[in-house]
Amino acid sequence: MKNVSLATPIEEGDPAADPKAFRRSLGQFATGVTVIATRHEGRPVGVTANSFSSLSLDPPLVLWSIARTSRSFAAFSAASHFSVSILGEDQIDVSQKLSSSREDKFAEVDWYPGIGGSPVMAGAIATLECSTFAVHEGGDHIILVGRVLQHRRYPGKALLYAQGQYGVVDEHPAFRAQAAADPGTAPPGRTLRDLPLTTLLYLAHHNSSAAFERHRREENISLTQSRILSALTRRSPLSRQSIVRQVYMTPQTVDDALGELLQRGCLECDGDDRFSLSEAGQMLARSIRMRLQEYEREQFAGISAERLDTTRDVLARFIEGLAEQAATDDAA
Amino acid sequence: MKNVSLATPIEEGDPAADPKAFRRSLGQFATGVTVIATRHEGRPVGVTANSFSSLSLDPPLVLWSIARTSRSFAAFSAASHFSVSILGEDQIDVSQKLSSSREDKFAEVDWYPGIGGSPVMAGAIATLECSTFAVHEGGDHIILVGRVLQHRRYPGKALLYAQGQYGVVDEHPAFRAQAAADPGTAPPGRTLRDLPLTTLLYLAHHNSSAAFERHRREENISLTQSRILSALTRRSPLSRQSIVRQVYMTPQTVDDALGELLQRGCLECDGDDRFSLSEAGQMLARSIRMRLQEYEREQFAGISAERLDTTRDVLARFIEGLAEQAATDDAA
Repeated sequence: MKNVSLATPIEEGDPAADPKAFRRSLGQFATGVTVIATRHEGRPVGVTANSFSSLSLDPPLVLWSIARTSRSFAAFSAASHFSVSILGEDQIDVSQKLSSSREDKFAEVDWYPGIGGSPVMAGAIATLECSTFAVHEGGDHIILVGRVLQHRRYPGKALLYAQGQYGVVDEHPAFRAQAAADPGTAPPGRTLRDLPLTTLLYLAHHNSSAAFERHRREENISLTQSRILSALTRRSPLSRQSIVRQVYMTPQTVDDALGELLQRGCLECDGDDRFSLSEAGQMLARSIRMRLQEYEREQFAGISAERLDTTRDVLARFIEGLAEQAATDDAA
Repeated sequence: MKNVSLATPIEEGDPAADPKAFRRSLGQFATGVTVIATRHEGRPVGVTANSFSSLSLDPPLVLWSIARTSRSFAAFSAASHFSVSILGEDQIDVSQKLSSSREDKFAEVDWYPGIGGSPVMAGAIATLECSTFAVHEGGDHIILVGRVLQHRRYPGKALLYAQGQYGVVDEHPAFRAQAAADPGTAPPGRTLRDLPLTTLLYLAHHNSSAAFERHRREENISLTQSRILSALTRRSPLSRQSIVRQVYMTPQTVDDALGELLQRGCLECDGDDRFSLSEAGQMLARSIRMRLQEYEREQFAGISAERLDTTRDVLARFIEGLAEQAATDDAA
């Protein structure tokens, strides 16, 4: 142990005293998103879950957990089989549909019956068909351990849940920075200007995201709150469910943020449980937007409008070219 | 269920028949990275783990699993307490150090003793101090359930493991595309060229990554293999451990890829277990690099050298400005 100087926590404490704060700490652990499904009394039953984890190779076991209060609890605790579908980055809609409480949710997604009749999601980047191997107590959840009988892997990247929001995986900057030093592409003594344009795009995007993130924290408003304000600026009133769909955050995160914004007097809620911005909320949304625009202007200060226009045009042509190419590749 | 047309899996089968293929399917589930640590016979003991999962809010429980063959198995299976440190995106070095088998690994990282003396990592984005609540059998692993006594949350984004490599979380493109349509920043009828430059950077980077990924798959070479070839082009010979550090992939993924490259005759291994490229390996590395360069040239074909230079220069100035700003913010 060295002499450690510690950062100040945003929140800390006894998890039993403030479950919401505890959930925010747990949300720092990023995860993929799965749909876990079974057949119960002849009908498909499924949930969106991020509590999945691999457990053992020999025998091949995986685990996940389900809340005792889940409406699918009875089905899964009695199930002889279940399937795990690991969702790809283009499957937010599947995640959102399966996490809804609608009775007919399987009618809206593509699936096929796997071993034991458990529905397996089409378009997943991996699927695991399991028999129930063990069930353990776990407080307000139970732990379900499955023995994997069949696995399939497909191309594609993972959909993520991280800090309450949907996300995608990107290469680590440390690898990018090192790969940029490859002598095959990089003469010694070169500057940033000698890097491949794709590497510059990567670095520009990542550094700019980090800067925006620092800036947003200074606004003393959470990412979820700012996304809700932005959604309600585009259109209002909106139901809770529409907001959840538009901000790409988990329902619990949205509920917490709606509560906070109501408390700050930024929202109004009509008789049909639909939300709109109060006058204070409109002012806050406008102020955030103006600050961000100002901030973006500052970042490019000192670069002539003409050169910025050229850059914008080159990037737009690049994006259009890539989009055409993707369409051609998909058709091939 | 609709009439489902299914993609062809890259791999599929009985997990018991081919554990490596099974592990690749499991690797499609992206996760954060944690260090889990305890005190055993007066000394700190810890491992890097991605099997962490939240379990219950009331009581506050989390779980993770450890291999029976782990050298830390005895310590954790007997431990009254353990800590979980969820690593931030700038903590690859902590992850790599704690996953090594070195005796003195705690001397090289910053930590402090938490409840029960369990080491807690400085710089983590969340920490959980636990007492052991339950232990369950889990094939070649055991499941450890901890009751969380104290949690702390810090600013920062999560380090990821996904498909065998370290990564970072990025915003989901679906959100970005929708947010770009915000009337506050976007007049109706506008084109790509009217978007904020930061949104163009995001779109250009993401579309270009996806295009490169499709291209690499056509080369019939895995990401790990191509990174190993690239590392050995920069410098050789390299030990297995140096390769693991340079390619930012998990040790198991690297071992699998080294085996595949040896089998393809691309690598030579000297008496000290250090790897270098064979003639075939050098040719393969050169061919991949040339194809990627050719590919990058094609993506920007039809745009004048002068305009590309301007773009490169604007991006470099933008990146330099952001780097200065980050340094100032850190100092403040």
